[in-house]
Parts: sequence; structure tokens; C-alpha cells
Amino acid sequence: MNYDNFIDWFQQGSVAIPKLLLQNYKNLNLNEEEFMVVLQVLNFIESGNTFPTPTELSSNMTLSTTRCTEILRHLLQKGYLAIEEDYHEKSIIVEKYSLKPLWVKLFHYLMSETIEQEKTVVQREEQ
Amino acid sequence: MNYDNFIDWFQQGSVAIPKLLLQNYKNLNLNEEEFMVVLQVLNFIESGNTFPTPTELSSNMTLSTTRCTEILRHLLQKGYLAIEEDYHEKSIIVEKYSLKPLWVKLFHYLMSETIEQEKTVVQREEQ
Amino acid sequence: MNYDNFIDWFQQGSVAIPKLLLQNYKNLNLNEEEFMVVLQVLNFIESGNTFPTPTELSSNMTLSTTRCTEILRHLLQKGYLAIEEDYHEKSIIVEKYSLKPLWVKLFHYLMSETIEQEKTVVQREEQ
Amino acid sequence: MNYDNFIDWFQQGSVAIPKLLLQNYKNLNLNEEEFMVVLQVLNFIESGNTFPTPTELSSNMTLSTTRCTEILRHLLQKGYLAIEEDYHEKSIIVEKYSLKPLWVKLFHYLMSETIEQEKTVVQREEQ
Repeated sequence: MNYDNFIDWFQQGSVAIPKLLLQNYKNLNLNEEEFMVVLQVLNFIESGNTFPTPTELSSNMTLSTTRCTEILRHLLQKGYLAIEEDYHEKSIIVEKYSLKPLWVKLFHYLMSETIEQEKTVVQREEQ
Repeated sequence: MNYDNFIDWFQQGSVAIPKLLLQNYKNLNLNEEEFMVVLQVLNFIESGNTFPTPTELSSNMTLSTTRCTEILRHLLQKGYLAIEEDYHEKSIIVEKYSLKPLWVKLFHYLMSETIEQEKTVVQREEQ
Repeated sequence: MNYDNFIDWFQQGSVAIPKLLLQNYKNLNLNEEEFMVVLQVLNFIESGNTFPTPTELSSNMTLSTTRCTEILRHLLQKGYLAIEEDYHEKSIIVEKYSLKPLWVKLFHYLMSETIEQEKTVVQREEQ
Repeated sequence: MNYDNFIDWFQQGSVAIPKLLLQNYKNLNLNEEEFMVVLQVLNFIESGNTFPTPTELSSNMTLSTTRCTEILRHLLQKGYLAIEEDYHEKSIIVEKYSLKPLWVKLFHYLMSETIEQEKTVVQREEQ
């Protein structure tokens, strides 16, 4: 046991999670388990593995591989995640997860909320 | 609807979650719901509210206030969170959550893992 | 010397700096010294001190207190930073730095860039 | 101009910079320009380019390519950065920057500071 371990641990770094997402995943109809799968996907992407398998996700979670597969399928079908194709050197195709659909959903929600609030203000002023 | 909203949303910033924690909360015997309560506490602390109520935590989650109260109590009793007292100007006492016990648990786990691995290496070399 | 120190160091956490800002401070006419003052202000804000003095900023930098004062004044005059007033309990007024003007500048720059690129595309298509 | 751009900008994410580093680069004998080169290297690594050229670094900075080359050389010679080799599929060797030497320097500094403080406490108690 020596200081080298501490430096290795420290060096792993952090994943920056937007506060907006932590505050609104519920409003996007995600529950805690589903949101944690999203965070694990983000964690793997930021660690260089852009297409983690259900088994890899499950290894960091209390959920079984089967449950991770189900949640991933749900997130893809309901448009929270997408799979993109990347072309590497020598035209090897690499699949990777994209969280862009999630940001789109988040902004749609925030915009509809804002419009709703503006309407309420206008209605109050008209009364 | 205008660009101001986007700037406000962007300005909210991110919470930096250590990758070590995302990878090891399961090994510290936390499940996804409990870990999400920890992340919400961290989110509130980083947003300037160092002692969020169960109702505030619940407002960002699919969990009820009662469930949040239960999980908070569990996290405090089992030594994942602590309550510290802060003395402000004019000696007003302010309570706040501390995640220090969680980091202590994390490092104890990582150290015991490392020692275990070193033992295995030594045993293999001796055979 | 013991493990407690490591845990304290680890616990300090990270400041999440938007990549857009790291990639564009130059386009907003900030140089490295000025941008580092912005980052130090952000660091102090995120550590709970929302109105750091030039002396406090200087203590983390190779720049003198006088130089930090000059740069702060420049950032305020040119609209990169603003000073906001916060009303605490018992109506004590607390001054704090806001980075909102910087985000506004960043988005204005990014939008003008985008419009410029779209114009170029249209011009090419017309030729 | 539409909302797509905002989502793309938002999606770029953040680089998590440890507060310890923002508070101590000066104590590690780095000035603001040198530290900004380190942050740019980190920014490129986190964006998937693990071996940015001086020209790429310079494109985000007010420093010339020549100046970036000089600073990179200095950081490598004085042991703040290292170049590591990665073996990809089909044994293509890929060079990449490592910030591990910087963390080692940071912890050595923090440890020597702690020991110094403990000595002072002991000396005061002995008097």
C-alpha cells in the first residue's frame, strides 16, 4: 500500500453532470434506475468506452445484466439515447451511444415550461 | 421565448461527480435510489443549499417525501452522510450535510481491495 | 501524515469549466492571464466565497494584488463580469460576482459565427 | 439560427478541474500561461484528442504555435507532463499526453506542506 494508489484514484477525475438534468430527469419521465443507467453510459463514454455493453453497465450497478438490457432498450425506443456510427481510420465502423436525444427532450421540456409560465403571467395581467 | 432562457439554463453549471464513486457505490452497499439521494444532496450543496429537506429532495425525484426521509435516515445511521454545524456571523448555528463519511468509506474499500489484490499476487508468486 | 489528508484533498472536488469557454475565451478577446482571473473567481464562488478580494485571487496566482485589481477592473468595465447584490436574512446586503455577462458574450459570439457560416454556405450555393 | 445550435453547444459539456490544482499551480512553479497550456491539453484529452499538436493548442489560445511548442517542451522536461504509448488494435502505436506527473508533483507538494505544518505545531507545543 503506498501513495501511488491515491494518485491513481485521484487521477480518474470526475464526470460533469448538468444540474438541469439532475433537477429535471423526473419531468422527462425517467425514474432513478433509468437515470442511473444514463449516468453510467455517460461515465463509460467519458472514460473512453463509447458503447458499453449491458454487462459492463451492470458491473457498476446493483441491477442485473437482463435489467440493464431492458432499460437500455427502453431508453433507445423512447428516444432518450441514440446509437450513432463513427467511421475510424481504414473505414472500420464503430457504434457509439449519443445522449443528444436526451438534451433535445430536456430543452423541449424547459421551453414548454417557460411558455406555460409566460401564459400564466399574461392571463393574470388580463384579469 | 428568447435567448435569455438559454443563457440562464447554461449558467446553472454542472456537478462534478468523481468517477470512482459512480464505479463503486455498489461496492459500498448503496443501491440506485440511495445513491441518487446522495447525488441530490450534493446537487443542493453545490447550489448553495447545504441542508435540503426531504421535501426539497423529493421535488427532484420520483420518490415520495416519506421515502426520502427513510433513505436520509438510513444514510445517516449507516455512516454515509453526517450533519455538521457551522457557526455564521453573530453565532447563528447552521446545520449542513457532509459527505466526508462517504469518501472515508470509499477509500477504506479501495484500500482493502488493493491489499487483497497484492496478497493474491504474492500467493501466485509463491506457488 | 496519514490517509485523512488524502480524503480531505479528494473531498475538495472540482470546478466544471464549460469546454466552449476554454475553446473561445480568445475569441472573446481575453488573454490567458485575464481568463485565469475569471477561473479563479469561479473557483472562489464554487467554494462559497462569492466576492473574493484581489488579495485572495492573487494568493492563488503568480500575479500581484495590483495586477489582479487592474484585471478585475478591466473585466468589469468591458462587461465580462458584473457585481450583483444579494439580500440575506435581516436585510444585510451581500455583494457577489456574476459571470452572466461572460455567458452572454459567449453566446453572442457563437451566434454571430453561426450566422456567418450560414451566409457563406448560401453564397456558395448561389454561385 | 435555431435551437439546434444551443443543444449542440450545451452538449459539449465541461472539463472538471480539481480545485486543488487551481489553488496550487503557483506552488508547483507554473505561471498562468503554462497552466493554461495544461488546461488546454486536458480539454483536448477529454474531447477525445489525446495528443494535440502545438498548432491545435495555439488555435484556442492567444499564444503562437512557437510559444506553445516551447511551453510543451518545458512541461515535458520539468516533469509536469509525460508522453505515453498506447497499443491499439492491430498493434498501431498511439502517443498520448499523461498528466500523471502533475498529480505526483501536486501530492508531493501537499504532503511536504502538511509535514511542515505538523512540525510547526510540535515545535510550538514544545516551547
